[in-house]
Amino acid sequence: MTDVINLASDNVAGAAPEILAAIASAASGRVPSYGGDDATRRLQERLSEVFERRVAAFPVPTGTAANSLALASFTPPWGAVLCHREAHVAVDECGAPEFFTHGAKLLLADGANGKLTPGTVAAALPDWRGDVHRSQPAILSLSQATESGTVYSPAEVGALAEAARGHGLAVHMDGSRFTNALVSQGCSPAELTWKAGVDVLSFGGTKNGCVMAEAVVFFDPDKAADFAFRRKRAGHLLSKMRFVSAQFEAYLADDLWLRLARNANARARQLADGLQALPGVELLYPVDANEVFVRLPAALSEGLRREGVVAAHWEGDIWRFVGAFDTDAATIETVLQRARRCVATTAG
Amino acid sequence: MTDVINLASDNVAGAAPEILAAIASAASGRVPSYGGDDATRRLQERLSEVFERRVAAFPVPTGTAANSLALASFTPPWGAVLCHREAHVAVDECGAPEFFTHGAKLLLADGANGKLTPGTVAAALPDWRGDVHRSQPAILSLSQATESGTVYSPAEVGALAEAARGHGLAVHMDGSRFTNALVSQGCSPAELTWKAGVDVLSFGGTKNGCVMAEAVVFFDPDKAADFAFRRKRAGHLLSKMRFVSAQFEAYLADDLWLRLARNANARARQLADGLQALPGVELLYPVDANEVFVRLPAALSEGLRREGVVAAHWEGDIWRFVGAFDTDAATIETVLQRARRCVATTAG
Amino acid sequence: MTDVINLASDNVAGAAPEILAAIASAASGRVPSYGGDDATRRLQERLSEVFERRVAAFPVPTGTAANSLALASFTPPWGAVLCHREAHVAVDECGAPEFFTHGAKLLLADGANGKLTPGTVAAALPDWRGDVHRSQPAILSLSQATESGTVYSPAEVGALAEAARGHGLAVHMDGSRFTNALVSQGCSPAELTWKAGVDVLSFGGTKNGCVMAEAVVFFDPDKAADFAFRRKRAGHLLSKMRFVSAQFEAYLADDLWLRLARNANARARQLADGLQALPGVELLYPVDANEVFVRLPAALSEGLRREGVVAAHWEGDIWRFVGAFDTDAATIETVLQRARRCVATTAG
Amino acid sequence: MTDVINLASDNVAGAAPEILAAIASAASGRVPSYGGDDATRRLQERLSEVFERRVAAFPVPTGTAANSLALASFTPPWGAVLCHREAHVAVDECGAPEFFTHGAKLLLADGANGKLTPGTVAAALPDWRGDVHRSQPAILSLSQATESGTVYSPAEVGALAEAARGHGLAVHMDGSRFTNALVSQGCSPAELTWKAGVDVLSFGGTKNGCVMAEAVVFFDPDKAADFAFRRKRAGHLLSKMRFVSAQFEAYLADDLWLRLARNANARARQLADGLQALPGVELLYPVDANEVFVRLPAALSEGLRREGVVAAHWEGDIWRFVGAFDTDAATIETVLQRARRCVATTAG
Repeated sequence: MTDVINLASDNVAGAAPEILAAIASAASGRVPSYGGDDATRRLQERLSEVFERRVAAFPVPTGTAANSLALASFTPPWGAVLCHREAHVAVDECGAPEFFTHGAKLLLADGANGKLTPGTVAAALPDWRGDVHRSQPAILSLSQATESGTVYSPAEVGALAEAARGHGLAVHMDGSRFTNALVSQGCSPAELTWKAGVDVLSFGGTKNGCVMAEAVVFFDPDKAADFAFRRKRAGHLLSKMRFVSAQFEAYLADDLWLRLARNANARARQLADGLQALPGVELLYPVDANEVFVRLPAALSEGLRREGVVAAHWEGDIWRFVGAFDTDAATIETVLQRARRCVATTAG
Repeated sequence: MTDVINLASDNVAGAAPEILAAIASAASGRVPSYGGDDATRRLQERLSEVFERRVAAFPVPTGTAANSLALASFTPPWGAVLCHREAHVAVDECGAPEFFTHGAKLLLADGANGKLTPGTVAAALPDWRGDVHRSQPAILSLSQATESGTVYSPAEVGALAEAARGHGLAVHMDGSRFTNALVSQGCSPAELTWKAGVDVLSFGGTKNGCVMAEAVVFFDPDKAADFAFRRKRAGHLLSKMRFVSAQFEAYLADDLWLRLARNANARARQLADGLQALPGVELLYPVDANEVFVRLPAALSEGLRREGVVAAHWEGDIWRFVGAFDTDAATIETVLQRARRCVATTAG
Repeated sequence: MTDVINLASDNVAGAAPEILAAIASAASGRVPSYGGDDATRRLQERLSEVFERRVAAFPVPTGTAANSLALASFTPPWGAVLCHREAHVAVDECGAPEFFTHGAKLLLADGANGKLTPGTVAAALPDWRGDVHRSQPAILSLSQATESGTVYSPAEVGALAEAARGHGLAVHMDGSRFTNALVSQGCSPAELTWKAGVDVLSFGGTKNGCVMAEAVVFFDPDKAADFAFRRKRAGHLLSKMRFVSAQFEAYLADDLWLRLARNANARARQLADGLQALPGVELLYPVDANEVFVRLPAALSEGLRREGVVAAHWEGDIWRFVGAFDTDAATIETVLQRARRCVATTAG
Repeated sequence: MTDVINLASDNVAGAAPEILAAIASAASGRVPSYGGDDATRRLQERLSEVFERRVAAFPVPTGTAANSLALASFTPPWGAVLCHREAHVAVDECGAPEFFTHGAKLLLADGANGKLTPGTVAAALPDWRGDVHRSQPAILSLSQATESGTVYSPAEVGALAEAARGHGLAVHMDGSRFTNALVSQGCSPAELTWKAGVDVLSFGGTKNGCVMAEAVVFFDPDKAADFAFRRKRAGHLLSKMRFVSAQFEAYLADDLWLRLARNANARARQLADGLQALPGVELLYPVDANEVFVRLPAALSEGLRREGVVAAHWEGDIWRFVGAFDTDAATIETVLQRARRCVATTAG
């Protein structure tokens, strides 16, 4: 029997050895709990360096927590969050943003390739500021990379942020795959965030090789005044915070985060190129980061399944394959060989 | 300079080697995310064995999350949670139970040594069931061990549960130090929980040697129907759940959990005995588990501080010392030597 | 100067003399507060007669309260309400349903003339029941009459309710203009509600001649077990409830409610017929109840404004005129005369 | 059979003729809905005159709504409201403050005669500002008159407000019986509120002769920026607001409010004096406003019940009698005659 190769998500992967070593190292000694430890303090410094600006950063255990706490910091209960119709915050978090904001609305905007444009943002923004009968738009949430595996350039983020600000909205970036988006472009973390107008970032580490490490990064620390209360009250203040902060420390050291994301992206590229060469395969979106969305002929998707290749079924004949931080080129080559075999068999 | 010895909390300790090894082992291979993995499935089996009954168990990252999600499962927004005036859920969670229950009330009851009694429970329970002007008591929350480091016997839990049921209340046990309470008594996990009338348990691993591992355990799985939605919606469904489930697997294997808790308790006992022998030291509560609350003469507390012994300042002249899973006897002996030296110096 | 004639809404009208008399009568004598009075008890009986079934009815002061409390009775915080994209609950209540449900989502469905169809309901209902990442659809909310002034027939309600039930949803009817919808069809209140599958009705009196009188009507009283707590907790339990119940008593006596609604509908019909005869005027939707939505040539809308005729500006060249319970035929004739004069002037 | 005389509450009374007339008058003509009418505009002016300062006033239908909306305007979800253990907001609103604040805590303080003192306020205020594990005290809520029928003098309010401000708290006054408290003292509305440090007042009219008329009054209109959204979202923005504003207009005209409250207070005084003269009757608190709390010998309470005198049973042998705006002296004299008759019979 052939080995199973699971490319359904980057969440099915484990963790990088450097991250595991950091957790083990962090275990020795006594340190203050609840984030009073040195590793957590150093994280503030390190992220301030990475983003070339003094930031306020708050580790949390999940991306849903990061997004919801970030959005709630800018959105009153009678407010609204504007996001893409496919955004994770809109369709994959069981209403977490509504829970953390105490019932704000999500306004859904359209856009090709999973990307909003200033035009679709403007179209979705109602003309009812101050109308007491209507929820008040408060923040724009961008996914970077998007749910379609595409990325926004700094210029695109800047144009969206400008459109948002023109309506009085703040800007959030859901960066559960931020590093994948970053390394696919020749820009700095600063250029992709606050320099382009982002107020708050969900900075994800889990999908890219950490065990459990997400952080909410405020580019204006003054906006974070209430955050510590919100986080504690939601059960997201970790008593042994050192174990998350240590993950981030290793993640951001020696360009580990960048190297892991580059690998994931390269594997997605490799896979996309190989699949596209096959008859009947249609790539749905540009492969800007580490996700590949394709239409597969039924014989091929069925054949791959039989051959032990696991992808995520999106809908109809659409499938998602994801490159992970530790997927190697040989594995992707094996997948492509299996795919070619399926095609050959079918054709025969 | 003498070494610093930090006994302020069991949260300042790291993690047991077995737990770290389990995390490292869990990192290899591809497994389904969000709890669809085998380790999480096995955890259900293992906890069902431990508690001698089919349970529904849900790993979460923090004790505050475990408590709040458990309470919210039994308490409508117009409900009330009855607990000790000093309970963690009442005074240490920044209103998390209120957040998760959407605004239920906490009714505070009294009791010596941090312990409720059927009498104080009855006294705190208003006679207003069905009165639409009043929040409706829905659940009794017991801390085991209590915030004073004492424990409830199975008989005591049973009597409290009976009092609660007489008023239509369910019973929750906040077991962030459940294992410490368990090993201090000659009873089984079942006897200390569902056999005594407990409906839902916050089963803590973090304080007792895990990195981050808590679980909500329902003794009647039918009561858990909504739990998965509540957990996801609160951002407490971990994408790489395997890393928490693996901790529990190691924790519950080969009696590790029991051994770690026994050590912590023994160290607290050792410390209490030694301190009590000193003039002017007053033990506040029975040392049933791993916490020691003492009044210290100012010269002694100040002397210990100078000697590098860190305790948690409770209030006035009251201090808390906590034995951890990995505190060794020699460390406690060193603390006692320093204490005796302080006393001798002062006396001289 | 000509008299101002305000047809912008039925909310701009006052109250019927019978309603005012009922309030005045209710003022004498001592009666239990908070709904313990006889008038409130009689209301249960009267509505049970009206709907030919034992109902549980709860007076509240506003339609937004009625809708939100009704929806919250069937929708958990992780649930979703399916409604028309234009529904009052979606766009005119500042997120009240989200507040009362503690953060449920509103799923917006399409449909011509403000009306949902089984097809648009099915299209909007996601295939994710039980998926913990998604809000769970819990109830369908129909506006009767709709926001476009159209009405659902009993058969249409029945088909929608059947589609809803097929997905496990309950059915709510926002009846702020229920009586207007009722009298426009030859059916009974029962046929338009529970016989067609409606579980809970927001039964409005305010727009149709009351001072302030709305009621939530449960067709299965067992579903109303928590309602009294929800209402009190939201500040909607009136201390002098008698004054609302008395309004309903008068409203439902001697067919007053039906007569008032028939008048409002007839005036809308009269106006629609007259306007339609004018060049350039386009009726947007069937005039099934008491609302008329029309496109008006700019010269005509401007002329009417100058002539003191007040309509509600909807958007672009679309205007709404509403017949009220006490609008008389002569007033509408005056409006039409002014409109004809505007047209004549412009043409000239 | 003797006539029933119900003195259980001021809520069991109807409404003053002037108020009923105002409602009837308000019914004629077309006016903008949702508070855009002239009567609502005039109310701002009138209350600004009454309080000698520009205020922002918001009519709402119930006292619970007024209190909860006022508290929520100053208290974040992680905040706490400090109030008397017996306060209406704590024990009579089914958790409405928790609902509107999204889960803030109520901290309960003690005090004789239902009154807080700077000392009991300080004792109840924890020393944990900024501690992320604790709810943060945000506002002090005073009941005026109190739940025991006593009143705070301007000096007492001032001292409490000063104590509150020293801990960073705002000050709310629950004035469901504000006018009763006002007329019992020789001071102005301003002296009893903002001049003494009150930020926001729940100004009640319903208990004192209105049908349904409460208002939230902000003494600093800048603090009211979000109020309109909160009110609408809670279903407390009335479409035919004119009918509440008109009640207030009549209530505040020609000293009606003061006259009605003076009558209610005088009747309570008359009753207290008469009852106190009877053997075995003990007055529990000073009768500062319109409520009388007394211990009654069982024979007397039973006798009064038989004689058709209805009081509210508080607990044990404690009963409450309330004078209403329209209770006349002869009625009280009749009650006293019946009481004396009971005593004579019993003695005999």
